Amino acid sequence: MIIIPIHIDSKKKDYEIIIGSHILQDIKSLFDFSQFSSVYIITDSNVKKLYLKTLQDTLLNFYNKPIYSYVFPAGETQKTFETVNKIYADMVLNKLDRKTLIINVGGGVVTDLGGFVASTYLRGISSLNISTTIEGMVDASVGGKVGIDFNGLKNIIGAYYQPNKVIIDVETIKTLPIKHVRAGFAEIIKHGLILDPIYFQQTTNKKPEEFSTQELVKIISKSCEIKAGIVEKDETEKNERKILNFGHTAGHAIESASLSSDQPLLHGEAVAIGMNVASIVSNKLKYVSKTDLQTIQTSLLNASLPITIPKQILIRTIMNLMKSDKKNQDGIIKWVLLKSIGIAKIDCEVPERIIIDSLRSCY
Amino acid sequence: MIIIPIHIDSKKKDYEIIIGSHILQDIKSLFDFSQFSSVYIITDSNVKKLYLKTLQDTLLNFYNKPIYSYVFPAGETQKTFETVNKIYADMVLNKLDRKTLIINVGGGVVTDLGGFVASTYLRGISSLNISTTIEGMVDASVGGKVGIDFNGLKNIIGAYYQPNKVIIDVETIKTLPIKHVRAGFAEIIKHGLILDPIYFQQTTNKKPEEFSTQELVKIISKSCEIKAGIVEKDETEKNERKILNFGHTAGHAIESASLSSDQPLLHGEAVAIGMNVASIVSNKLKYVSKTDLQTIQTSLLNASLPITIPKQILIRTIMNLMKSDKKNQDGIIKWVLLKSIGIAKIDCEVPERIIIDSLRSCY
Repeated sequence: MIIIPIHIDSKKKDYEIIIGSHILQDIKSLFDFSQFSSVYIITDSNVKKLYLKTLQDTLLNFYNKPIYSYVFPAGETQKTFETVNKIYADMVLNKLDRKTLIINVGGGVVTDLGGFVASTYLRGISSLNISTTIEGMVDASVGGKVGIDFNGLKNIIGAYYQPNKVIIDVETIKTLPIKHVRAGFAEIIKHGLILDPIYFQQTTNKKPEEFSTQELVKIISKSCEIKAGIVEKDETEKNERKILNFGHTAGHAIESASLSSDQPLLHGEAVAIGMNVASIVSNKLKYVSKTDLQTIQTSLLNASLPITIPKQILIRTIMNLMKSDKKNQDGIIKWVLLKSIGIAKIDCEVPERIIIDSLRSCY
Repeated sequence: MIIIPIHIDSKKKDYEIIIGSHILQDIKSLFDFSQFSSVYIITDSNVKKLYLKTLQDTLLNFYNKPIYSYVFPAGETQKTFETVNKIYADMVLNKLDRKTLIINVGGGVVTDLGGFVASTYLRGISSLNISTTIEGMVDASVGGKVGIDFNGLKNIIGAYYQPNKVIIDVETIKTLPIKHVRAGFAEIIKHGLILDPIYFQQTTNKKPEEFSTQELVKIISKSCEIKAGIVEKDETEKNERKILNFGHTAGHAIESASLSSDQPLLHGEAVAIGMNVASIVSNKLKYVSKTDLQTIQTSLLNASLPITIPKQILIRTIMNLMKSDKKNQDGIIKWVLLKSIGIAKIDCEVPERIIIDSLRSCY
């Protein structure tokens, strides 16, 4: 018997997030396009109306190789293999090579899906993300999680794949529907809740829509830094990174269940409900005080975020979806709970009775 | 404007290839199964008949958690999203979690496709490859290339993803059709041609089917070492690794074209033809001598490998397919050519007239 050891040094991939206001028009100075044989823009039908033409025109000013674009209908329901396959087919048709740069322009759905295409086309090509939603800016832009939904389960197929750069122009927030601004703040509030009580206070002392451009630049930078600090220690979510799943255990299940209804929740809205559920569980297990629980609920409501589960979504449905959550091991649901505002605890097992009681109190 | 640097330390993934004879029955001592919540075996209909039951029985002797299996119809034409989607659906249905171990049992088609599933299910889970064909042993087992075909183009979608371990039991070679043994030798002969004239001589001085078990263990180990030596320097094929594409420029195109015919070529057969094409090109460009060219052709014929292009495949078809090869950049075909037996040269551009002349002489 012969044993051959194989050592693969996966290359370290560093990248930068650039955050500012009115910086998109200056994209040429923010990123080196010269090394790419073509540019392939992926975006959705909403973002197309707002930014595609402007971006193409800006690129045409200095980039003289082919610029392609692919627009898919907006919405989480499009984050599937059907969309991915259409994009692959278009890329193959245009004979796009390994030196192609994918530019994903949009929110988390676009960067998740476009990032998955980048991670798998020709075994991986370069990508530049331009985040246009708060959710995308503070969540999807850091950590390299890319993926698509499958059989109604969120992000069940995917990879860890870092973009070459992320550009965040907070001006794009001004074109977001108010509902999306508030949903984005759910992830921002989460960062405070799990790690930083002062940041929690700073981001909830006004309504999301009341922050100025300069305040938004600071808030989004701070959230990116918090997330980066966690992800850098644990790219593939073995330990520390799990903390970011606060509010996502029930949140993902409620979001999945709502997708098939006529009133699908935004990811951030579902996370807000999920954070309420997890906080109630934390309180029932005597981890978090009644006062902290009330502060959390008041803050979420003040941000105009939902904290109750839509009536048409049954507890049984949520329980079943939580049991098939990809974060489970050996079929056991692992919760992230709070010990206090700013301190989280991962890998908590919770008796089913307490989960059901907590969910029941959220209708 | 604020710039946040993100540092991701992608973890180095080392693994071992274990090569021997009659080692499969002792799989328990070769791999630690205890850390996994379930085992999911992926194989094809041919391999199923030979090894699935035995493997399941062996595992049942010591592994008391769930063992699943998925069998897809044998053949390169199955290496598609349709098959991958069926596997995902089966895995989701069985609620398989992140601690699942995928065991891919079979040739390159199984390990490429099963490896792609492992790389994308829940953003990547563990895998153990049991290679049962020579092609798979000396090619697919080293380097972490996983993937599927798309719109008739080979391996256009995929990733770099290393398995946890590879087990090679040369006894499985004895159950291979002779055609597959010979096709496997095409990659072995390639390793000699691009890097090691003595190894080329050793592996072509007998017919493939004439080597003893012990000689096969040595040959397969040597080929794995040659490939590992190249891949370790260049996981994602920026430079050195390109040398392994010798014979694959025309070879892949001819293989793709043959897939839609009633007599599809095996990968190794197409590579043998492709090596002949590349050697003729090398000779026409005065890189390789007439004597070396004749030695190469005689050796391939002696191994009962084809060196001529099937008549039904047109030069125009091959040219078009080569132009959409994923290794191209800016639409230019980059060839790996030989300077002599044992010395290759990457990134060669060849005048179209010489390519066409060389192809024409191969009918």
